[in-house]
Amino acid sequence: MDSLPLGSDHTDGQKPSEYCAVVGYKGGGEALDSLLTSLKTLQHRGQESAGIAVFKSGSVQVHKGMGLVSEVFNPKYSDFSFLDGSRVGIGHTRYSTAGRKTVENAGPFVVSSSVGYIAISHNGEITNAEQLKESMKRRGATFQTTSDTEVMLMEISRDVNEFGIVNGIKQAMNRLKGAYSATLLINDRLFAIRDPHGFRPLVIGRLPDGYLVASESCAIDVLGGELLRDVMPGEVVEIREDGLHTLFVQASKSISHCMFEYVYFARPDSIIDGREVFDTRIELGRRLAREHPVDADLVIPVPDSGRSQALGYSMESGIPYNEGLIKNRFSERTFIMPTQEQRRNAVKVKLNAIKSTVKDKRVVLVDDSIVRGNTMKHIVDILRRAGAREIHVRIGSPEIIAPCYFGVDMKTKDQFIAAGRTTEEIRKEIGADSLGYVSIEGLVDAIGFPAESLCLGCLTGKYPVTIPGERHAAQSELENF
Amino acid sequence: MDSLPLGSDHTDGQKPSEYCAVVGYKGGGEALDSLLTSLKTLQHRGQESAGIAVFKSGSVQVHKGMGLVSEVFNPKYSDFSFLDGSRVGIGHTRYSTAGRKTVENAGPFVVSSSVGYIAISHNGEITNAEQLKESMKRRGATFQTTSDTEVMLMEISRDVNEFGIVNGIKQAMNRLKGAYSATLLINDRLFAIRDPHGFRPLVIGRLPDGYLVASESCAIDVLGGELLRDVMPGEVVEIREDGLHTLFVQASKSISHCMFEYVYFARPDSIIDGREVFDTRIELGRRLAREHPVDADLVIPVPDSGRSQALGYSMESGIPYNEGLIKNRFSERTFIMPTQEQRRNAVKVKLNAIKSTVKDKRVVLVDDSIVRGNTMKHIVDILRRAGAREIHVRIGSPEIIAPCYFGVDMKTKDQFIAAGRTTEEIRKEIGADSLGYVSIEGLVDAIGFPAESLCLGCLTGKYPVTIPGERHAAQSELENF
Amino acid sequence: MDSLPLGSDHTDGQKPSEYCAVVGYKGGGEALDSLLTSLKTLQHRGQESAGIAVFKSGSVQVHKGMGLVSEVFNPKYSDFSFLDGSRVGIGHTRYSTAGRKTVENAGPFVVSSSVGYIAISHNGEITNAEQLKESMKRRGATFQTTSDTEVMLMEISRDVNEFGIVNGIKQAMNRLKGAYSATLLINDRLFAIRDPHGFRPLVIGRLPDGYLVASESCAIDVLGGELLRDVMPGEVVEIREDGLHTLFVQASKSISHCMFEYVYFARPDSIIDGREVFDTRIELGRRLAREHPVDADLVIPVPDSGRSQALGYSMESGIPYNEGLIKNRFSERTFIMPTQEQRRNAVKVKLNAIKSTVKDKRVVLVDDSIVRGNTMKHIVDILRRAGAREIHVRIGSPEIIAPCYFGVDMKTKDQFIAAGRTTEEIRKEIGADSLGYVSIEGLVDAIGFPAESLCLGCLTGKYPVTIPGERHAAQSELENF
Amino acid sequence: MDSLPLGSDHTDGQKPSEYCAVVGYKGGGEALDSLLTSLKTLQHRGQESAGIAVFKSGSVQVHKGMGLVSEVFNPKYSDFSFLDGSRVGIGHTRYSTAGRKTVENAGPFVVSSSVGYIAISHNGEITNAEQLKESMKRRGATFQTTSDTEVMLMEISRDVNEFGIVNGIKQAMNRLKGAYSATLLINDRLFAIRDPHGFRPLVIGRLPDGYLVASESCAIDVLGGELLRDVMPGEVVEIREDGLHTLFVQASKSISHCMFEYVYFARPDSIIDGREVFDTRIELGRRLAREHPVDADLVIPVPDSGRSQALGYSMESGIPYNEGLIKNRFSERTFIMPTQEQRRNAVKVKLNAIKSTVKDKRVVLVDDSIVRGNTMKHIVDILRRAGAREIHVRIGSPEIIAPCYFGVDMKTKDQFIAAGRTTEEIRKEIGADSLGYVSIEGLVDAIGFPAESLCLGCLTGKYPVTIPGERHAAQSELENF
Repeated sequence: MDSLPLGSDHTDGQKPSEYCAVVGYKGGGEALDSLLTSLKTLQHRGQESAGIAVFKSGSVQVHKGMGLVSEVFNPKYSDFSFLDGSRVGIGHTRYSTAGRKTVENAGPFVVSSSVGYIAISHNGEITNAEQLKESMKRRGATFQTTSDTEVMLMEISRDVNEFGIVNGIKQAMNRLKGAYSATLLINDRLFAIRDPHGFRPLVIGRLPDGYLVASESCAIDVLGGELLRDVMPGEVVEIREDGLHTLFVQASKSISHCMFEYVYFARPDSIIDGREVFDTRIELGRRLAREHPVDADLVIPVPDSGRSQALGYSMESGIPYNEGLIKNRFSERTFIMPTQEQRRNAVKVKLNAIKSTVKDKRVVLVDDSIVRGNTMKHIVDILRRAGAREIHVRIGSPEIIAPCYFGVDMKTKDQFIAAGRTTEEIRKEIGADSLGYVSIEGLVDAIGFPAESLCLGCLTGKYPVTIPGERHAAQSELENF
Repeated sequence: MDSLPLGSDHTDGQKPSEYCAVVGYKGGGEALDSLLTSLKTLQHRGQESAGIAVFKSGSVQVHKGMGLVSEVFNPKYSDFSFLDGSRVGIGHTRYSTAGRKTVENAGPFVVSSSVGYIAISHNGEITNAEQLKESMKRRGATFQTTSDTEVMLMEISRDVNEFGIVNGIKQAMNRLKGAYSATLLINDRLFAIRDPHGFRPLVIGRLPDGYLVASESCAIDVLGGELLRDVMPGEVVEIREDGLHTLFVQASKSISHCMFEYVYFARPDSIIDGREVFDTRIELGRRLAREHPVDADLVIPVPDSGRSQALGYSMESGIPYNEGLIKNRFSERTFIMPTQEQRRNAVKVKLNAIKSTVKDKRVVLVDDSIVRGNTMKHIVDILRRAGAREIHVRIGSPEIIAPCYFGVDMKTKDQFIAAGRTTEEIRKEIGADSLGYVSIEGLVDAIGFPAESLCLGCLTGKYPVTIPGERHAAQSELENF
Repeated sequence: MDSLPLGSDHTDGQKPSEYCAVVGYKGGGEALDSLLTSLKTLQHRGQESAGIAVFKSGSVQVHKGMGLVSEVFNPKYSDFSFLDGSRVGIGHTRYSTAGRKTVENAGPFVVSSSVGYIAISHNGEITNAEQLKESMKRRGATFQTTSDTEVMLMEISRDVNEFGIVNGIKQAMNRLKGAYSATLLINDRLFAIRDPHGFRPLVIGRLPDGYLVASESCAIDVLGGELLRDVMPGEVVEIREDGLHTLFVQASKSISHCMFEYVYFARPDSIIDGREVFDTRIELGRRLAREHPVDADLVIPVPDSGRSQALGYSMESGIPYNEGLIKNRFSERTFIMPTQEQRRNAVKVKLNAIKSTVKDKRVVLVDDSIVRGNTMKHIVDILRRAGAREIHVRIGSPEIIAPCYFGVDMKTKDQFIAAGRTTEEIRKEIGADSLGYVSIEGLVDAIGFPAESLCLGCLTGKYPVTIPGERHAAQSELENF
Repeated sequence: MDSLPLGSDHTDGQKPSEYCAVVGYKGGGEALDSLLTSLKTLQHRGQESAGIAVFKSGSVQVHKGMGLVSEVFNPKYSDFSFLDGSRVGIGHTRYSTAGRKTVENAGPFVVSSSVGYIAISHNGEITNAEQLKESMKRRGATFQTTSDTEVMLMEISRDVNEFGIVNGIKQAMNRLKGAYSATLLINDRLFAIRDPHGFRPLVIGRLPDGYLVASESCAIDVLGGELLRDVMPGEVVEIREDGLHTLFVQASKSISHCMFEYVYFARPDSIIDGREVFDTRIELGRRLAREHPVDADLVIPVPDSGRSQALGYSMESGIPYNEGLIKNRFSERTFIMPTQEQRRNAVKVKLNAIKSTVKDKRVVLVDDSIVRGNTMKHIVDILRRAGAREIHVRIGSPEIIAPCYFGVDMKTKDQFIAAGRTTEEIRKEIGADSLGYVSIEGLVDAIGFPAESLCLGCLTGKYPVTIPGERHAAQSELENF
């Protein structure tokens, strides 16, 4: 899969998706430098906005804006030198979703409160945000944005004000349902918190000059640091100069790591909850080869998203791996927001086949996932026109059939090509000669956690957390899927 | 005077000045059109940011940004068409003060609350904002900006939630001290409120297709409307399609109209609290001529700020009026924020003398006010070099010696050339042959209100409202100055 | 008049108007500084583009772009520090005309040639540009722009290459017809040239650290310099560190100073060809009062363009002068190019009446000129609605009825309200109670040159230079008008 | 290799590199659409500027600017709708080289001449540009830019003026030495020309609605067209609606296709002079494996530049292929020009190792080329830190030791790590365990042309064309290398 956001037209006032990168730094070095480098490394987790908040001279200062990290933090266009000279801070990037984007929803959020400044960078989605919001409103509170993060920050602030920092965070976490991996700055103190299900990743590393908390371990690597460990599900850890101090661990009934991090979101060079993402994808390709073998001449990936799984398929099947599609490196993203017309045109210039590779060949085409199916249909067509004799599509994840409520921008059923369709119907739709998805069992095995420790909601429609209004928690069923 | 902001370096986290334009529209026409035109007309009351919020399809939508109205609302650079099609809304421009400017402080502010959406455009300064803020923080509230407007909005929201709209606004106004003239949008209902002292102006006009509330009457003129009346000090008025409904008038111990509106801020073509600003300035010039006559050849204004007063001086004294200084029309303001170096250079290119007018002449040079004195010193020098034989400076307002706490960006004593200096010392400092200020009595007479109905704080150091921490209310003394 | 450009829609490929500011500096100081300050001072002569070329380290370096001087030369947005450290250079601003504006036509133009670098800043219009261009094309030359300046530069370059610098310029000037006042940089040598008719102004001043050539003397004042003299019609003068060296003076059959410089274009504080512009305008007002007296209560100017003439009218007639119209200082110009809709709206927010001044009064409304008449019609309407009893329009120049071929953006007859209309018809059109223009004789007397030394082409339709194709030279007739 | 431009600091006034994409369209469809799509597809051949010129309504219109195609042609930021409705035009992108970049050098260049409009898009470098320029200058010509393209255009224009279109182009091509593949628009006629050596590629394809000339065939694919043939070395072909018309073919003493197109520049999915680029790179990898075998555990590419060659190495050696490095997709390029500091930081965030892949492994690291060596040194270090036991660097091209004079931005010897160093010295410098380059023979064989039909100047220092001033033609020697 290569084309999130899914293009659903978010109407104004709708809650923005909270798929993001979060980072936090505390140490003896320049906080701004480490935060900037780590945010750039995690840019794949959000290109809509970027921001950094640091504690300095008695207050928390923030600079944020719309665009890539390198754009928001470009000294030619804005002066953010007031962030210099701090030893502790947090950073944030936000995922680019369709619809009207406003800087109001950009992170980190910062407020002043009775205990001083509180700032938060958040990745995830609070499933009971609306209830909490309504409840706070009834007590006179007001909200300036449509973001879950504001709800979270106000819950935490209120309780911290009433019960003190540690107990306050604890109380707030008792009420917050859903997915959250966040870094928290309370004046000069840095905290990392993760929901009891552990939906979204969050790791801690030791840098040459301090500590880094980050959504993914690749940020630690790039800074020349060493991955220490994941923040545990339900854990609140304070990062002090003398080390990590777990303040408490909220009891967790079940772990529910998001399987999509392994399949698509995380960078292949990251290690999440102890699993190497790249290895998991190779293994998904191997399982795919075992579950859906085919007699073919070569295996080619959809660049760049299907490359690891295609390698795994080739290793397992013995069918030679090759590159058969070229991706236009400049179609990735431009600073300037594209018009609708440019977006359509963009698909056209994005991919082209290498004729000499695929001509008259029986091709296994591997990608990581299919959401809406448009891109895959287009690719199959390109390969046909380039002379491929047979095209066997293999997908390194199961069929996506249900919305995500924990931070991925897949919200409505009718956007999924697999919802309500048989595999054969999908195959026809995309025009392939055969089509195979990795089974849920295969996915679970490849990731290596027991099924009950993964969130498979978008594959099964059964969620580890009660979704207010319509969805039922299905923990018991989930165990028997 | 021609050079506000005064250049004081606002440190970050400091409260921004609340000198602004506010507008509100309700009627049968396109709210966006009337709000845009009126904001452009009131652009002199704030060039830092501009914004408009309208009620539409069940929610309040807002578009705001940094820059002139014509820049923020330029369809080439941002899409604000989602504001189209509304019949009610409010608008805001903010004064450009020195220091770091952020969009966070731009108006209007909008929140969602238990009663729905509440939006506010505010002009003024809440003197007990810090106390109210601390008090709310102690009860768990948090603040996202350093702006008084956020405090105001949160106080109102809380009480509206508890006591209903009318009583809620009443309760909040009981607690809010200081200066505020504001337009309030609660879902599709439009309110105008003004503090019991009536520091800042606020007028209501009837347009061909509805009602307009605005900081100054010139906005009503430009829209082809008719000035109905001022919002009364302490009044809360709801603007409905069928007319104006005064909800209540908060009891006022004293009226304290800001004398500086008449001297400098308001556009000459505006009528404020029943007084024509232009006429007041002409009268100030006449008083000046009577209080500080001089034997001279011609009267020239500092363009454009001293023009009305210079005309008055000429009328009264019989000394011919002429133009002796040319102002560079392009030095006014550029979209691009100037560097410090450019600002210095700007003074150089701003004014030049007409030699043939002033050469060998005894010149009466008239301006509306002097704050820091730098510009006046520079102008006297220009005239000297152009050959003026004598330069008699006449100022259409008394000496400014004390800070303003009600919305003007004059905060520290050491910026005033007149603080702790005799008139003779100031004369020497600016290099004039003679110097005369209008007396406080003269000013009061020219404006035409009794002294006790004016705020003369910056002239006397005695304020109509207790200034928390250091200043004492001096109502009794004020009456006897 | 206050609204050039006249809004004629230049089709692409059409020759742009050459109404501009030119400057040149040579001395011991930083050339960039003096050039920047002088261009900012002459910003009224062109807001479309700005540029500076200096000689440095063996070559001529140039920086230019679209926008105000303060925008093009803003270190935040572009790096022009490579211009630092030079002692000689030229600068240019271009007038904002309607139609597509491209940086290709921005000045200064720079070429490399057999004699090294040649750069030119030009103000004027070459009447035989098309013939020269065609002739050069036939010999193999090509043109990259539609600008007269390129033609001029190529003519000069060719002859300088063939005949040496001095003779080359001479030869080229023999062929160039029309209006040109220009600064020329040939490697590190600075020249000022002016056509034999002396249409456009060009003055030389001595600065504290060198010499400045500029379109108007106000630039010299602002730099603390002293006006030495005008460049003579037909003169080529080289500015060397040791003084001014007239290289030659091309024979001139007649002087033809543009009367419109005195009426409208030049800044009032400039002295052009020995005449003080402000004094000329005062005198025009006086003549107007004598030629078109009226029984009235007050004289008011159209701000800011009619102010000097209104003062003159008042002085002569004894009718009191006052301000009756307020101009929105922010409607002047914004960085962002306005849409057509914004331009319409702009008229609305531009001016407002001071009711207390004009209500029930018989008003003499004075402006410098009328071209299309739209603005005047709008102003009369504003005054009527403000309650003026009678409105007597007085114009400080004669009727404009014919195009200009010498650098003013008035190209087609149908844009002139006065073309083919009687004064009475115009009066009706604009809705005034009476209307009076200064007579041509009055204008000539006020300026103080003999009629045959002025270009009155736009008033008479008879031009001092043969206009290829359609117009006839009318020197003989002109003398007898 | 992955890091051209090489970072040489072009001083101002220096000739810009002419590495570019050129396209041309003639047919029955909308020229703008096909030109835009093909330029976006060829964006890898130049990201500094983009432009399109079309013939329409009797003249040639051009729109060009700095930035990516999607930025320059973004309707939000500039209006280029005046290009709509044309059936014939040309387009251009320019390579991003270091140093001051100005829009003056952006293509296409357009001039008006005696025969009408002439526009050119050029890829290559004219080796005798300076001599031609000097010669033209001596005859009075002037130059507005430092670009070879201007020289080319002026030579062609002059001769076309004198000898007519076909003979004129012929005459000009007789004088122009060096590398040029260009599209030419003379009014509504479209021509494609290629120098007799055929240095740079140029192909012609048939689209559903017309013809496309383009630097590479992938542009034809993306438009759903069919590759017809290459423009022959020395050929001038006119593209008419009824087909291709070869006007003449300039005699060629030798063909000299640039080997670097096959190694690095061209997109792998292109076919150049009959050779599939991807296949050539696979073959280079195979040769590399045979020439420099090594006992290792896996082959990994430098992404994305070394991928094809790494695949070839793996195929030939049987050593498993895997991905061991992850490239940050967002480090590619940002709209905003980076500061020097950001550029340094960029290297850090660009690449990271997949530890699980490389830990304790003997790794063959394959890239396409090494120019300066900095990046390779950095990558070897990353792999070491990730735990690779041995790192064997294999390069799919020979050592680059000499400048290019035919359009690649490698101009000075001291930037080449291989200049004056033995392979062993380079190995030490980059820190690898072993290092092997493909031999020149191997390269020649892999491409499949005889050595005498390739330009190997940067590998041998012997050039197929006399380089004025210092270099000697070495055709005879070249044949014996």
